[in-house]
Amino acid sequence: MIKVVKFGGSSLASATQFAKVGNIIKADPERKFVVPSAPGKRNSKDTKVTDMLYACYDLAEAEKDFSKELKKIKERYEAIINGLHLTLSLDDEFKIIEENFKKKAGSQYAASRGEYLNGIIMANYLGYDFVDSAEVIIFNEDGSFDADTTDKLLGERLSKLENAVVPGFYGATLGGVVKTFSRGGSDITGSLVSKAVHATAYENWTDVSGFLIADPRIIDNPKPIKVITYRELRELSYMGASVLHEDSVFPVRKAGIPINIRNTNAPDDEGTWIVESTCHHPAYTITGIAGKKGFVSVNIDKDMMNAEVGFGRKVLSAFEENGINFEHMPSGIDTMTVFVHEPEFAAKEQAVISAINRNAHPDSIEIEADLALIAVVGRGMKSTRGTAGRIFSALAHANVNVKMIDQGSSELNIIIGVSDNDFDTAIKAIYDIFVTTQL
Amino acid sequence: MIKVVKFGGSSLASATQFAKVGNIIKADPERKFVVPSAPGKRNSKDTKVTDMLYACYDLAEAEKDFSKELKKIKERYEAIINGLHLTLSLDDEFKIIEENFKKKAGSQYAASRGEYLNGIIMANYLGYDFVDSAEVIIFNEDGSFDADTTDKLLGERLSKLENAVVPGFYGATLGGVVKTFSRGGSDITGSLVSKAVHATAYENWTDVSGFLIADPRIIDNPKPIKVITYRELRELSYMGASVLHEDSVFPVRKAGIPINIRNTNAPDDEGTWIVESTCHHPAYTITGIAGKKGFVSVNIDKDMMNAEVGFGRKVLSAFEENGINFEHMPSGIDTMTVFVHEPEFAAKEQAVISAINRNAHPDSIEIEADLALIAVVGRGMKSTRGTAGRIFSALAHANVNVKMIDQGSSELNIIIGVSDNDFDTAIKAIYDIFVTTQL
Repeated sequence: MIKVVKFGGSSLASATQFAKVGNIIKADPERKFVVPSAPGKRNSKDTKVTDMLYACYDLAEAEKDFSKELKKIKERYEAIINGLHLTLSLDDEFKIIEENFKKKAGSQYAASRGEYLNGIIMANYLGYDFVDSAEVIIFNEDGSFDADTTDKLLGERLSKLENAVVPGFYGATLGGVVKTFSRGGSDITGSLVSKAVHATAYENWTDVSGFLIADPRIIDNPKPIKVITYRELRELSYMGASVLHEDSVFPVRKAGIPINIRNTNAPDDEGTWIVESTCHHPAYTITGIAGKKGFVSVNIDKDMMNAEVGFGRKVLSAFEENGINFEHMPSGIDTMTVFVHEPEFAAKEQAVISAINRNAHPDSIEIEADLALIAVVGRGMKSTRGTAGRIFSALAHANVNVKMIDQGSSELNIIIGVSDNDFDTAIKAIYDIFVTTQL
Repeated sequence: MIKVVKFGGSSLASATQFAKVGNIIKADPERKFVVPSAPGKRNSKDTKVTDMLYACYDLAEAEKDFSKELKKIKERYEAIINGLHLTLSLDDEFKIIEENFKKKAGSQYAASRGEYLNGIIMANYLGYDFVDSAEVIIFNEDGSFDADTTDKLLGERLSKLENAVVPGFYGATLGGVVKTFSRGGSDITGSLVSKAVHATAYENWTDVSGFLIADPRIIDNPKPIKVITYRELRELSYMGASVLHEDSVFPVRKAGIPINIRNTNAPDDEGTWIVESTCHHPAYTITGIAGKKGFVSVNIDKDMMNAEVGFGRKVLSAFEENGINFEHMPSGIDTMTVFVHEPEFAAKEQAVISAINRNAHPDSIEIEADLALIAVVGRGMKSTRGTAGRIFSALAHANVNVKMIDQGSSELNIIIGVSDNDFDTAIKAIYDIFVTTQL
């Protein structure tokens, strides 16, 4: 049984945090492979080491003196080393970095040193082997990721080791040029390592106890989600919930490895399990609520529209011609409404309207702005009758005017349109009815 | 103030019915122009005169003896004349009809005689002028209706008369060839007369006291609708409610003339007013419920679908290529569902699926049959918060599984998808919550 553990920047920002991480790893002998991020912020006014590296390298590239800045970075690491009472010197490493900065080795190389150095410290602290990701995470010359070669090299290398530290965020071309992942960062590395070693679980340690049912900026102390499917996760993340980047879950999802989101500062919390599918009965009927503001509805009326083959296609073509993606298209009888993102639509509004008129000859077109869409997501909704009734009764009691409802046959989510002004109220009302009052 | 009154076949099936009609017309001096249908059934085993005429003419066209059949038709009219104690003979009229049948004047001519003769009796009974529709309702040679010429001739002729009877259902070309309306029949004539005389109201007298909130085959004694807009009417009729044909309301709708559906057998009932728009507060939050069975849902999943410009259009093209009209297209995140009519879809199912695969490359396509769509329609829904909540709570209590919800920005209707088996239960539950318990 092998677990891969990835730690985020705030989990590794200081010696104190490193010590917590050490305890977590040692508490479970299955936690054999460790993927560290670069040191994050120690407090809200602090700077992440990665950002310090970018700034420092900018000076190098401008052929200005960067010694003071590099020294400060070195001090961050030394504070961790000293705090952990390690006998480790990074002098040689920093000499190489200084030389490479002078040679203008690239900002991706510069940024990657945050994880690289943290990985060295982590390996020393744990007594684990250190594997430089530049040797096992492989990019093509054009900067795209080479999944097959990576899986092969990473698998071969790690199969020979009892345990190891593999720094996140970067890799290199076979020619040795360091490249970083553009989005998802160390989460992707953790996912790749998990796949390569056929892990039984990929633990992703952060500073929150898993995903929350709703946005904590709207709901006080929302409950965490215990188990969520990839599908539900994607739905919540699409609607604005802050979760793992798509690219970072892809390798483990393909391999069927569950992800466990954990909190370094509350290691006893179970966190959230992300799985392909599950018979785990959710704690509440709904798994999560998420939403986004800033939508526009384009409401199109035409007598006998429903009898006109191709009408919907003609309307949608008008949006497509202008490169605008539609979000939802609820329809009544002789009326259809197309929901689009306001920023995308605003500039092309008149072009789209004239295209609709040209393509589909509607009787009228009405536009309403400042709308929000809310997704109520949950695999438990399909088997629970009355979910829709509870949602809309709750919204009515909260005096929220429902402007759009969309629920297809998948029954995994209901999309609700409300005015931007009603957004928070609506989310609170839905959270309360399903979670606070535990219906 | 001019009212046009049109009477359906059952209102004019016998002398007893004629007398009721006479009382209705005389009760209001504004009822100046009368549009009669042909005599309908006097009881459930009876035959409509129009059907007797078709059968009789078929014999004539086959050059068989039709004298017995024509005599029976004459007897129907004579029973009315005698019952009303009129001194009117139709001998000459029937001689002409017999000659024209022998000349094979056409089945449209034959059918039109039902209204023509009833109009003559009605004019005699009321002491009104008789205007033969063949002179004022004008068709083109190809059988299409000539609205402009009709409006001109009809207006000129009726402006010279204090009151008149204009038989429904037929007109003629300027060359004198009798033509009939294919659908909507006498209702269209009434509508045309109303427009031509700038009527203040078009009273359409039938055997029901207006439109009902729900189908009486599902709901016992459903309440009538007092005021309905054309828009609402169209929505209910599209979803299967039996109402006036589209063509028959078009002329009065254009002219802004309200229609009043009344019951000849209960003339004190107010019936239903059909209007363009109204500030009349509806008696209930909903105006009506209607629905149809026999839909299929095609549920299409694709990861990241929402980020793909043109995805919806590609899917809809697959239906359009096969000449299939879609009814509704609710969408979630990474999922969309297309509702189509089962009879239309079944034969082309595999062609559509393969076109979807070819056009849009989805991850999966699932088909569910035996679904019903229910439209809850009402202009009062927009201003009443909580309508959706009440609907879905009612359905939950009735153990109806809601498979689809669609409500666009018009907020004039909510479309609900349920299994065919739940159709009646669902309509009952919605009727009860809004009408029986008067919420």
